[in-house]
Amino acid sequence: MEEVEEFRYEPKSVKEIFIEMKDTVELMVDLAYASILFGDKEIAEEVLELEERIDILNYQLMIHGVLAARNVKEAEQVIAIIQMANAIEDISNAAGDLAKMVLEGIELHPVIKETIVEGEEIIGRIVVSPDSVIVGRTLGELDLATNTGVWIIAVRRGKRWIFGPDESFKIRAGDILIGRGTRTSIEHLKEIARGAIRVVGNERA
Amino acid sequence: MEEVEEFRYEPKSVKEIFIEMKDTVELMVDLAYASILFGDKEIAEEVLELEERIDILNYQLMIHGVLAARNVKEAEQVIAIIQMANAIEDISNAAGDLAKMVLEGIELHPVIKETIVEGEEIIGRIVVSPDSVIVGRTLGELDLATNTGVWIIAVRRGKRWIFGPDESFKIRAGDILIGRGTRTSIEHLKEIARGAIRVVGNERA
Repeated sequence: MEEVEEFRYEPKSVKEIFIEMKDTVELMVDLAYASILFGDKEIAEEVLELEERIDILNYQLMIHGVLAARNVKEAEQVIAIIQMANAIEDISNAAGDLAKMVLEGIELHPVIKETIVEGEEIIGRIVVSPDSVIVGRTLGELDLATNTGVWIIAVRRGKRWIFGPDESFKIRAGDILIGRGTRTSIEHLKEIARGAIRVVGNERA
Repeated sequence: MEEVEEFRYEPKSVKEIFIEMKDTVELMVDLAYASILFGDKEIAEEVLELEERIDILNYQLMIHGVLAARNVKEAEQVIAIIQMANAIEDISNAAGDLAKMVLEGIELHPVIKETIVEGEEIIGRIVVSPDSVIVGRTLGELDLATNTGVWIIAVRRGKRWIFGPDESFKIRAGDILIGRGTRTSIEHLKEIARGAIRVVGNERA
């Protein structure tokens, strides 16, 4: 019975760890670009903290994986998980390298910031006015990623940063949203956030 | 005069190369996950071809950068560009490592595919029906990234793949779109693509 329980437990755990790793590293890359764009050391520090989190998750994943393998086929499958996790960790390290450029106060060439705001997906800063229809609503209700094409990667509230805000995060007037999306989608969300557009996605205001 | 011309020419070139690198590596990561999800070796081959392109772009960038530096301040700025380009190349290599897992025919654990379709941003496959309002329209006109939150990273047309389709790409009935977005946005686009929803974003059909 113990074996069966372990077998049923491990894959779920591995999956949860793996999904957290993938989501975290995507956030890290976005935050790394944001830290460079805004020259913001607090965002850069967060990237390095997430890099440590990735290291821990990757180690946990390897422990779970190695314990789960009972035969050659399973061992091969576990090795594929470890290979994929290592590739994700490489991306995490690259994001960390980008963040370190900011922390080390390296002199940045103007093209660096231009690259971040002129590519296909860009990072933008959206100020929320008291008049906006998004005030008082949660990110889960608004589903901005689906309805406007903008992913909210961080929020500046007064002197505080909220990184990777979750679905329960409620937007307040004065919040500064840091988002990733197309230029058009960022501009569209800016119009919603300043109160000029009163509809989010397919909703009616 | 020659110096001035060179000075005005180089930064523009560096910027174009740099933006292409950043956009390409983002496409590579998406395609790498898609190649794993669908077990598709053609997509994986494309990732490796793009990895070679990144190597060339990075080398060009370094040549331009080194030639452009005239004093210590400029040299420092150029080094920052090279550091950032190296981080982008690290991500490109990681995407290449993911693609190689597919090409080497490695036995994949089920959690690998589950991770790609259960994270915050997922990869989805959208079949275009003859009845859909998107048939006959270009990706530029539709701006699906803004209007539905889905980035189209590849299109399967008959036996052919189109990778990273541009704005002029016109959708045909029978196309299979490979997109990256939230689960909700992928589901929404599927409804549009099968003709059940006849409005894209804020448009009227």
